[in-house]
Amino acid sequence: MTEIDPLRAGHAAWCEADAPHSLVLRLPADQPLLMDAGVALAPLNIAYQTYGVLNADKSNAILVCHALTGDQHVANVHPLTGKPGWWETMVGPGKPVDTDRYFIICSNVVGGCLGTTGPASTNPATGQPYGLTMPMVTIRDMVRAQAMLVDHLGIDQLFCAIGGSMGGMQVLQWAATYPERVFSAIPIATAARHSSQNIAFHEVGRQAVMADPEWAAGRYFETGRLPTKGLAVARMAAHITYLSDEALHRKFGRKFQNKTAPTFSFDADFQIESYLRHQGSTFVERFDANSYLYLTRAMDYFDLAADYEGSLARAFQHTKTRFCVASFTSDWLFPTAASRSIVHALNAGGASVSFVEIETDKGHDAFLLDVPELFATTSGFLEGAARARGLKTAKGTS
Amino acid sequence: MTEIDPLRAGHAAWCEADAPHSLVLRLPADQPLLMDAGVALAPLNIAYQTYGVLNADKSNAILVCHALTGDQHVANVHPLTGKPGWWETMVGPGKPVDTDRYFIICSNVVGGCLGTTGPASTNPATGQPYGLTMPMVTIRDMVRAQAMLVDHLGIDQLFCAIGGSMGGMQVLQWAATYPERVFSAIPIATAARHSSQNIAFHEVGRQAVMADPEWAAGRYFETGRLPTKGLAVARMAAHITYLSDEALHRKFGRKFQNKTAPTFSFDADFQIESYLRHQGSTFVERFDANSYLYLTRAMDYFDLAADYEGSLARAFQHTKTRFCVASFTSDWLFPTAASRSIVHALNAGGASVSFVEIETDKGHDAFLLDVPELFATTSGFLEGAARARGLKTAKGTS
Repeated sequence: MTEIDPLRAGHAAWCEADAPHSLVLRLPADQPLLMDAGVALAPLNIAYQTYGVLNADKSNAILVCHALTGDQHVANVHPLTGKPGWWETMVGPGKPVDTDRYFIICSNVVGGCLGTTGPASTNPATGQPYGLTMPMVTIRDMVRAQAMLVDHLGIDQLFCAIGGSMGGMQVLQWAATYPERVFSAIPIATAARHSSQNIAFHEVGRQAVMADPEWAAGRYFETGRLPTKGLAVARMAAHITYLSDEALHRKFGRKFQNKTAPTFSFDADFQIESYLRHQGSTFVERFDANSYLYLTRAMDYFDLAADYEGSLARAFQHTKTRFCVASFTSDWLFPTAASRSIVHALNAGGASVSFVEIETDKGHDAFLLDVPELFATTSGFLEGAARARGLKTAKGTS
Repeated sequence: MTEIDPLRAGHAAWCEADAPHSLVLRLPADQPLLMDAGVALAPLNIAYQTYGVLNADKSNAILVCHALTGDQHVANVHPLTGKPGWWETMVGPGKPVDTDRYFIICSNVVGGCLGTTGPASTNPATGQPYGLTMPMVTIRDMVRAQAMLVDHLGIDQLFCAIGGSMGGMQVLQWAATYPERVFSAIPIATAARHSSQNIAFHEVGRQAVMADPEWAAGRYFETGRLPTKGLAVARMAAHITYLSDEALHRKFGRKFQNKTAPTFSFDADFQIESYLRHQGSTFVERFDANSYLYLTRAMDYFDLAADYEGSLARAFQHTKTRFCVASFTSDWLFPTAASRSIVHALNAGGASVSFVEIETDKGHDAFLLDVPELFATTSGFLEGAARARGLKTAKGTS
């Protein structure tokens, strides 16, 4: 086998998989991750970032759970793209998730490609990337790994777990699996199970990747050529689902790209085409194709009620966790109905829950964007939870 | 260049492109199709089917316009798939579009691959398929070719033009371009212009085809290997948009395919995955990849108002055509709002129009399915139009 130097091949993302620009918890072989697929994965690396200061009684920790293509770089410049952290609107000094008051933790999920063990990581047993020999990952596996990190940090109970989309799934899983360890939970734009339509869109993305001959049955690390075309198509298809019809109409409509009339060709005549192609081509520079397969699969498998005899209410029975559930009116990927199902189950389980459906035309992506009502909701909820937890509040009193 | 025998290569679809199992109007070089792209296309073949009998004064002709992946085989067994015609629920003896009373015409669109000139057709000037040397096609080009066929059949005025989706676009274009030649028009589940979201989905499909190395910049006819993987991905993505979230949930939910638990692999664990893969793999057997590029592009370019100084009402001003516009509640690809825009423009143009939004959870595909309210609407409207036109009605009187 030829050894590929990822840096020479221009695959900076592969370097992050083994040597990330962040903190890394390296768990030894005797502390494996016990996965739903029945495998004990070891050694396990968990790449993470923290922001703010953990207080003396370790009661002010907030775990931020990232979405499908997110990572641990919530509120710092991204090492590969040079862009701001993916949730700087929400997390930072004076922001709703206030780094001046809380200790923020965000780890790359298991199966990811930014330093936590995933298909792009080198398997120390073989010296090669795991590729498809990586065991299938579930949302619960991601949460188990996060719990190991939280243990390592000496934190018994998180003050809050917060996340949108796949991040929201992790938040729900945390509350179900470790109810005593989550004082409050903010699942945003998410669902307790992935819908048939959502599985369908993911399957299209996976098939697009697998249709690319450069994917080479997942062993592209042997050739150094990446399935960039297939992954770009997958990203383009997914990207449409993150936006609303209204937002697309408002942003792009039928506007032409740098021209006034159609070219009668297959060039990107329309701005929306040009925009999508850009989304596809930039994504492949920062994300591993196999990782994309694993993480979409993890979301597809997610069905929290299935682990509780089909009853979502049972997943949350007698929970003391305080919940704040948020959805967006124009999100058709994780529509409000999915959030309502969560709220109904929480109510049936006797949980404390507040629910807000936020009016916006920004679609699913709204959880990542500048949506003041989301910030106000999060701030207000955290304020109340901080008071209940006996933390110092914004007014400086406990 | 190696000559490929399409039959030996198993590409039956290529045979249909030059020698279809249907009637063909072969127009000589001095009767070119004058295309929006500024090209005079000649010679032009128009493959078509007819059903029923044209009456003495040639006043009972109904033109059925097919959708993106449809063809002329409306109500007969398909020569490639062996399946029933694509609209046998709507067209046939005693059906709403009644072959006992009307003379039904359906032609394969220009740019198609079932016998009308398109990228899979042999260019007589070169002896090779047109491929990407085929000029870009518009909805208006399709309608111009249909008008040439209607001329050839000696029909001055169609009693009705009917079609769904891309077929509905042609119906609208007929009414705008040849108002005197369409007594009545039934555009179903369509729009007067393609939305940004719809362009986006089409662009993903095109990129999926073009990402397949077997596509070979459109010259796959030189290798005899087809871009089946790319085209299958395109079809899968498109197919999701034809169904509603509700219909997917009802039909598939999260049901497993021939198993009771996840396999923790990338197999088609879920029924929806298996179904989509089947949709993709069967489509490539009957459809030409380049044709798919051309026809999606034609839909993207469609913007009827743009040809009338941005006023859709002007497109229909003083029209005597009677319209029946139909949409479906769960159609998110061509939502009711798009039909309402057509109705508003028709009203502003002073046209006679009836409009019905049909309650169904079947999504965009509803126009092809067994939806009794659609049949009742079509029957009732045609009955009234037949009376107004002085045709024999179902009761046997004129």
